[in-house]
Amino acid sequence: MGPHPAVAAIRLAVRRVLHDLLTEHHRAPAAVPHAPSHEQPPPPLVLVACSGGADSMALASALAFESPKLGIRAGGVTVDHGLQPGSDARAEEVVQRLRELGLDPVDSVAVTVGRAGGPEAAARDARYAALDTAAERHGAAAVLLGHTRDDQAETVLLGLARGSGIRSLSGMAAVSGAGGRYRRPFLELDRQTARKACMVQSLPVWDDPHNADPAYTRSRLRQEGLPALEKALGKGVVEALARTARLSRDDADALDSWAGQAEATVRDAAGLLECAKLYALPPAVRRRVLRRAAIAAGAPAGSLFARHIEEVDRLITGWRGQGAINLPGKVVARRQGGRLVIRQG
Amino acid sequence: MGPHPAVAAIRLAVRRVLHDLLTEHHRAPAAVPHAPSHEQPPPPLVLVACSGGADSMALASALAFESPKLGIRAGGVTVDHGLQPGSDARAEEVVQRLRELGLDPVDSVAVTVGRAGGPEAAARDARYAALDTAAERHGAAAVLLGHTRDDQAETVLLGLARGSGIRSLSGMAAVSGAGGRYRRPFLELDRQTARKACMVQSLPVWDDPHNADPAYTRSRLRQEGLPALEKALGKGVVEALARTARLSRDDADALDSWAGQAEATVRDAAGLLECAKLYALPPAVRRRVLRRAAIAAGAPAGSLFARHIEEVDRLITGWRGQGAINLPGKVVARRQGGRLVIRQG
Repeated sequence: MGPHPAVAAIRLAVRRVLHDLLTEHHRAPAAVPHAPSHEQPPPPLVLVACSGGADSMALASALAFESPKLGIRAGGVTVDHGLQPGSDARAEEVVQRLRELGLDPVDSVAVTVGRAGGPEAAARDARYAALDTAAERHGAAAVLLGHTRDDQAETVLLGLARGSGIRSLSGMAAVSGAGGRYRRPFLELDRQTARKACMVQSLPVWDDPHNADPAYTRSRLRQEGLPALEKALGKGVVEALARTARLSRDDADALDSWAGQAEATVRDAAGLLECAKLYALPPAVRRRVLRRAAIAAGAPAGSLFARHIEEVDRLITGWRGQGAINLPGKVVARRQGGRLVIRQG
Repeated sequence: MGPHPAVAAIRLAVRRVLHDLLTEHHRAPAAVPHAPSHEQPPPPLVLVACSGGADSMALASALAFESPKLGIRAGGVTVDHGLQPGSDARAEEVVQRLRELGLDPVDSVAVTVGRAGGPEAAARDARYAALDTAAERHGAAAVLLGHTRDDQAETVLLGLARGSGIRSLSGMAAVSGAGGRYRRPFLELDRQTARKACMVQSLPVWDDPHNADPAYTRSRLRQEGLPALEKALGKGVVEALARTARLSRDDADALDSWAGQAEATVRDAAGLLECAKLYALPPAVRRRVLRRAAIAAGAPAGSLFARHIEEVDRLITGWRGQGAINLPGKVVARRQGGRLVIRQG
């Protein structure tokens, strides 16, 4: 008898990612090209980032099962955010559980969460910095993250609420980070499957109280927003949101590359943007060229909103002698003699 | 003392659209170029489509106020869908109210709602057919529709639930239909403002019980889905969804035009699609080329979903000798000798 369908599903998802990694590993040029051929490089190490919750415990169990069959080393990292009393003891418990699954090495890393960008963004920044450090310390080929299709759907809705265009609808990438370090094998898998896989494998899981805390936007979305949307629109909403993310990411990539090529064609000999040539571009491409130019001039990407770019765009499409437009980062955009001048100060 | 802010807002929205129309009217070549110059064409006629609800009654009142100042003729049409007992009497009441506002001509048109595509789509199809006929009968320059920013937000969410990409996120256009006949002056205005404008002008409005009927997806979205989303994500959600619609529309237009140009470059001398050239396109462009080719081969656009195109795409990106792919409209896609053949039968 084969494994439970939920367990089979999580293992298949991890196996696919590991196969990709192995292919890349074998294709990669040898680190020491002149070493004797019998000195094989050590098998690649894959780490799982594990909070002790159902998604990442399921991921850890699947990694532990699949890695020996492929000759891959498997380890784990848990991050202690220090945001709740007893979080250090819980982190030790997660370390213990990962070791019981056979993972080695297993690290617990304590971080200090700042305040920049709000509580969720600050915790995320601290977490990824810790995971980066752990991956580099162990020379890991990849770090697996347990984000599910439900997390993806929530991320798309959070992006939708910003209303800043299709890039913010593209959710999380299946592969991201420096050198494609982060992999999300469960991005097409629903949360219920991960939870079920833990249950049938008798894996103890920890429910982070933050996930149900209405102080967090994502928790409100998970507990109330998304269920209400499913009630109105049907059960396929989560899948539809995840598909929207994939399609939007490809669309945004294509338009970004178009804008990159277009930017070179709309600059004059002095490198200034020519308004007439900008006007001739499709609006979607023109706005991206303007955004690139504003960022190149020093405007911080994260503070540059759709409304800023729309205002700069009106210097091109609705020119009636308006004055300079102030952008974040003390960047100023003005129209002068048929040229658009975007610079700091 | 000026008008109430809500009344000022609806009038400004209508004035902007009428100015656009007048500019187009005056720019348009004369219908009879050799007619004596003293024979002026009659002033353009603008019709308002009015259900008697708050949005379209506010629109009718603003059109009635603005049109004489611009020398435009203003009329109205109400459509009796015949879906509720007494709908004919109600339509007559709407006609009476529009006449009281000074609109002329005012028509009531009874339609028979079919079943194709579900109750909402069938009612919409019947309504637009009736409005088209009325516009042609009176030689109207435009038909104004009362869709608000809230309607737009709902439309974006309905598109999101289809998960078929950014075209379905682009909502309703401000200008649509044959020759840009339909105009939506309130697309940036919230429903509350239209309702307030009716109240302060003592305009009686009719609340369509369908709008609160949970049998309709849009009603569920309006009554429960969107309020829950606002509770989770904040009050700016409606505005963010409307902005997403505008940005997505421009993005989808730009990518469609790219795909149109790319399609010509990936066909061989015999007009067949070359797999190697398709492979080299960005995924977002390639999928649009494939979609265009499937539609050109006879697949009905409305039945062609993202998953169909993804499957055809795998003939290019994940070729391992798989067989022919069946598409709607008896269209078949297969790979043969480095060419992608998409045809009926």
